[in-house]
Amino acid sequence: MHRTRVRIVEDALDANNTIARANRADFDRHEVAVINLMSAPGAGKTTLLERVLPDLAGVRVGVLEGDVQGSLDADRLADLHVPIAQLNTDPGFGGECHLDANMVRSALPSLPLADLDLLVIENVGNLVCPAEFRVGEDARVMVSSVTEGEDKPLKYPLMFRTCELVVINKIDLLPHLDFDLELFRHHLDAVHPGVERVLVSARTGEGVGAVRDWMVALATPRAPART
Amino acid sequence: MHRTRVRIVEDALDANNTIARANRADFDRHEVAVINLMSAPGAGKTTLLERVLPDLAGVRVGVLEGDVQGSLDADRLADLHVPIAQLNTDPGFGGECHLDANMVRSALPSLPLADLDLLVIENVGNLVCPAEFRVGEDARVMVSSVTEGEDKPLKYPLMFRTCELVVINKIDLLPHLDFDLELFRHHLDAVHPGVERVLVSARTGEGVGAVRDWMVALATPRAPART
Repeated sequence: MHRTRVRIVEDALDANNTIARANRADFDRHEVAVINLMSAPGAGKTTLLERVLPDLAGVRVGVLEGDVQGSLDADRLADLHVPIAQLNTDPGFGGECHLDANMVRSALPSLPLADLDLLVIENVGNLVCPAEFRVGEDARVMVSSVTEGEDKPLKYPLMFRTCELVVINKIDLLPHLDFDLELFRHHLDAVHPGVERVLVSARTGEGVGAVRDWMVALATPRAPART
Repeated sequence: MHRTRVRIVEDALDANNTIARANRADFDRHEVAVINLMSAPGAGKTTLLERVLPDLAGVRVGVLEGDVQGSLDADRLADLHVPIAQLNTDPGFGGECHLDANMVRSALPSLPLADLDLLVIENVGNLVCPAEFRVGEDARVMVSSVTEGEDKPLKYPLMFRTCELVVINKIDLLPHLDFDLELFRHHLDAVHPGVERVLVSARTGEGVGAVRDWMVALATPRAPART
């Protein structure tokens, strides 16, 4: 049974990758850079977007919100007046724990891709399965809150290994935690040596400019650099 | 394709429930009460166990640690000198995001069930799929950290709806957060009216006694109460 299960999962990932390539072709045709934004529940993805999106130096941004249920995050971002599409994963069964390429594909007609330079896909809060499913993104950004402890890169290595930027969030709480930032960096470099990282408090705004600059650079048309 | 997928998942859940009942029969035969301990990554499950397990009023406890990879949490609990078994989900594929009944069953021979009154199964840090897979437990305890925000019951309703106790952790950080405890309680009651809850700081020890008392009561032989 175990071998059968592995085979089914491998087939599912193959099928996912095929659809992810189709998504990617659509994004490239419309010259939209796409970020897959991931984190554990409550790490601060939406708060980060509330801070970053209003100030993107002319980059036209859209958001695809992925949640098991509800539209709380999309509602929070409504005031930004950017195109937002909501994907709920609960029709899958009790609730899928991640977005896959097919779900994202189903939402693309709701977004004006031709009028966007950047699409941010906010994934379901989860450090395991979202890392396994490419959705056609150019880059993966993960948010890791200092409240979660230093051990997370070691416990969820695939997530930390497959992202292009790690946003270390909630640094305003550092004086009140036992969190050892050097140890976290050490663990991060153990699973993804040298990966780009920024220290941020989405709550106070500290460090958010670096995330904004990173997103603007990604979305600035320079086709050869988007590998 | 979608209908096929739902069918496959339903079949998997049916198979899981069958094995969960077999686990439960084994636990009942050995008169072991079993807790399925769940939370988002970094909410403080292991720190809570470090606080609670040394002081269980004579209740003989064992731990089953579930992680995608590694044995960091089991290593942390080693000093407690209680029986610990480690389950890693990464052989599944890139890594299963939850424990299922069959994984738990595979680990039972590593635990001296006949010598235990209580088994705590620390699940993979994830608020979605662990809620869908019964493993034969008597009770589900979930840990929700105040750093994760007030909206989590609404975003992950199945998890909050299917647990018997909600441990609201990291309350030592409340003075430094915008977290609205009343709003969290309101959301919690919206998805699981009246569910038992305790306020805790596993870090300082505040409120931990209530969790200990709850676990001791669960493990105290009183067969009719274990429904």
